[in-house]
Amino acid sequence: MTSGDSVYAAVLAGGSGQRFWPLSRELSPKQMLSVFGAESLIAQAVHRVDGFARPENVCIVTSERLFDELRNHLTAQPDPTLRSVRYLQEPLARNTAPAIAYAAAVFEREDPDAVMIVLPSDHLLKTGPLWAECLQSAISLAHDDYLVTIGITPTRPETAYGYIEAGPELEEYATGRARPRKAARFVEKPDAERAEQFIANGRYYWNAGIFVMRTARVLEELEVHPDTATIPEVVRWLAAAQATGSLDAAEAYARFGSLPSVSIDYAVMERADRVAVIPAALEWSDVGSLLALADIAEPDADGNVRVGRGVDLESRNSIVYSTDRLVATLGVEDLMVIDTLDATLVAPKERAQDVRLVAEALAAVGAEEVVHSKTSLRPWGSWTTLLEGPGYKIKRVEVTPGYRLSLQSHARRSEHWVVVSGTAWVNCDDQDFELCANKSAYIPVGLIHRLENRGAEPLVIIEVQVGDYVGEDDIVRIEDDWSRHD
Amino acid sequence: MTSGDSVYAAVLAGGSGQRFWPLSRELSPKQMLSVFGAESLIAQAVHRVDGFARPENVCIVTSERLFDELRNHLTAQPDPTLRSVRYLQEPLARNTAPAIAYAAAVFEREDPDAVMIVLPSDHLLKTGPLWAECLQSAISLAHDDYLVTIGITPTRPETAYGYIEAGPELEEYATGRARPRKAARFVEKPDAERAEQFIANGRYYWNAGIFVMRTARVLEELEVHPDTATIPEVVRWLAAAQATGSLDAAEAYARFGSLPSVSIDYAVMERADRVAVIPAALEWSDVGSLLALADIAEPDADGNVRVGRGVDLESRNSIVYSTDRLVATLGVEDLMVIDTLDATLVAPKERAQDVRLVAEALAAVGAEEVVHSKTSLRPWGSWTTLLEGPGYKIKRVEVTPGYRLSLQSHARRSEHWVVVSGTAWVNCDDQDFELCANKSAYIPVGLIHRLENRGAEPLVIIEVQVGDYVGEDDIVRIEDDWSRHD
Repeated sequence: MTSGDSVYAAVLAGGSGQRFWPLSRELSPKQMLSVFGAESLIAQAVHRVDGFARPENVCIVTSERLFDELRNHLTAQPDPTLRSVRYLQEPLARNTAPAIAYAAAVFEREDPDAVMIVLPSDHLLKTGPLWAECLQSAISLAHDDYLVTIGITPTRPETAYGYIEAGPELEEYATGRARPRKAARFVEKPDAERAEQFIANGRYYWNAGIFVMRTARVLEELEVHPDTATIPEVVRWLAAAQATGSLDAAEAYARFGSLPSVSIDYAVMERADRVAVIPAALEWSDVGSLLALADIAEPDADGNVRVGRGVDLESRNSIVYSTDRLVATLGVEDLMVIDTLDATLVAPKERAQDVRLVAEALAAVGAEEVVHSKTSLRPWGSWTTLLEGPGYKIKRVEVTPGYRLSLQSHARRSEHWVVVSGTAWVNCDDQDFELCANKSAYIPVGLIHRLENRGAEPLVIIEVQVGDYVGEDDIVRIEDDWSRHD
Repeated sequence: MTSGDSVYAAVLAGGSGQRFWPLSRELSPKQMLSVFGAESLIAQAVHRVDGFARPENVCIVTSERLFDELRNHLTAQPDPTLRSVRYLQEPLARNTAPAIAYAAAVFEREDPDAVMIVLPSDHLLKTGPLWAECLQSAISLAHDDYLVTIGITPTRPETAYGYIEAGPELEEYATGRARPRKAARFVEKPDAERAEQFIANGRYYWNAGIFVMRTARVLEELEVHPDTATIPEVVRWLAAAQATGSLDAAEAYARFGSLPSVSIDYAVMERADRVAVIPAALEWSDVGSLLALADIAEPDADGNVRVGRGVDLESRNSIVYSTDRLVATLGVEDLMVIDTLDATLVAPKERAQDVRLVAEALAAVGAEEVVHSKTSLRPWGSWTTLLEGPGYKIKRVEVTPGYRLSLQSHARRSEHWVVVSGTAWVNCDDQDFELCANKSAYIPVGLIHRLENRGAEPLVIIEVQVGDYVGEDDIVRIEDDWSRHD
């Protein structure tokens, strides 16, 4: 019934996730967090379409700013599926309708009959047979020109989610337990009283932002309404320019920037005909705030959820999350303490929704801890800054087996490398040599060099940079496996 | 009137200061904190007797465990006074009477007419002319066989301090504004009602633990009372053994351990005749808990006292102290957040007195963060652990100008040194060489080596240790400027 070839997926990953600071940063947003399950949220999102869309037909739709970071993140995973996805860069953020339309235009060029699955990149969803049945049913509906959404069976009168009211059954598209219905209407976040009514009524489902639809249909719907009619033309132009490598960044910025900033819910789903919802009792969460950390570990006898080293003495109902440092609490209640290598947040749990205000305030004073963390993912592995002082910087550099850094040089710093684990293959000034643990190399300023891990174990080196300038931008890349420039 | 030769000082520095965790650690206790003023509390205490006792007559009375740390701390200061003091190690802690008696016995051997000034090492006291007048007056009283204490004019009905009731004036010993009186009685910490009465009465003063007395008189007083009569004999034996270098550690432990654990207040001051108090409106604090941090910076408009980077958003009346990391609070009230390189404490201000419980709980689970911090002071400078991993450890090592480490070797680790600031003089396997910034050296396992700073600037090296064991105790010292062994 479904053809893997014509099924595409767009994973929406443009969000900055300020509400998760300090766990997330502008350049390592919420979708890259690996605290909710074994994989990061975006890796989980990609795997959600396993068996339905081929990896190369999965497209991460993100901002220009996050593109490198997300690619580094997914490329650094050993999983080949995650390495095979592709990326679309929105010239700037214009909410979900233009983002989805852009992906639709790209997919449409490759297959005019393409069906696309749209998924948020930063939610939690338990997959399994029911999820597969939902997708199966949704794809067949989409091929028949339905705009399909998955409706999550609500478990509480949540006021933070939108709801979908379900209408009559669409029996002919049922697949196992996935029993689609006409969507009667989309409802914005309700107040507490209405939310209670929705639950009592039984025909209302959570809108999880998951859609399945023919790309052509999405673009047609946008064309129909005057307020969104410009979107298809602009995204088709973008898709064509991108496909032919002739994208002019300034024009893309200007044209995409002229589009209305509008959600797909408003632009399409709420006012189209032939909209279906597949109600499903799936375990789902939008991971909306740091309070989601309360679910990742068992609370102690006093209701405290703790991850990381330390003690909670006479504290109650608090969340203490530490990535590596020791955190102790004494006599606190309903508090969140979120601790990372370089920054700590302390706030009452009831203020979880306002954490973005902290990120904004820190950004306003130029704190770099809102932009990036001490650890930076690279396509070949990662580095962590251990110390920066006047004229020097110390890093721990880890290279994934089989990968190498770019062939590069630095104009203003020398580097001292000491291998502490694994084996390094070094090229420096056209000389090749191998360094095992406890061996060191010196890379003088200006010399062209490359570091590679041909072994089976991760390579860890300690790098001591010395120079009058040790900023990240002092790098000239002569050759790079990921086409990065300086 | 006073002879500098016959005036000695005993600075009591055996306290562990668990109430200041995580700022203080077992091996860097409260008296070593430098957050209250430009110098550490113990350095301030030593300087309190400047002009009265010669530096070599100032004795730090401490435990065997803290001796090295305190000596490293005071030796690392550029101030020659702090480097000239000497140390007495109590075999074990037996409260203040045995500690003071031990110092008295040592001083008495050198000068039978010695007068000693006893000072806590971990208080704040503003010195100046009034303080000098108090000491002047106290010393003349002591020479006339008075047991003298300084009584701080109380500024509030504090229930955490002991009080001294003043009797008739001793006019002939007045010096400027220092107008001594007979001490009528010593009173333990009062309840709130009595504290109010003391303030209203006007003849009650805070007992700051500062005493001035002839050493012979202290020992005589102890001899008089059956419950303390054994103290003089034991401390005289200890002082003699220490002076002749014949101290048997096991016997010292046994004999000192047999002494009653009793305070000088109880053992001597409260029951002796001829006790004087010099009332003085000195600015003084016992720095009794982390709440003392509230005084080290101006509060913001919402009453928050903040030291270190970060923001406090809609927070009130809180203390946020960070040594180097970024800490943000949102909507907290009356909270303390104390952040250090490797550990963070969060507690309501009203629980400040119970912070020792946290230190005890952490000690019970073997957290090394209660024992020491990432930075360790050495007599030659300091080191900070940046990272420890399997088979390696990275340190930043700073060597004070003019100092050198011991001539040493390691049985199980090699070391890679990169100079990032200053110039190193290295001796390795009998070879001498100089390393300027951006130069490196390799010290293979087993080789005898030494690192020295002959320059005028601090020397900073990054040390990468690699080996199957990288513990601090893998060191053989062949020669050491401070007679340290392995």
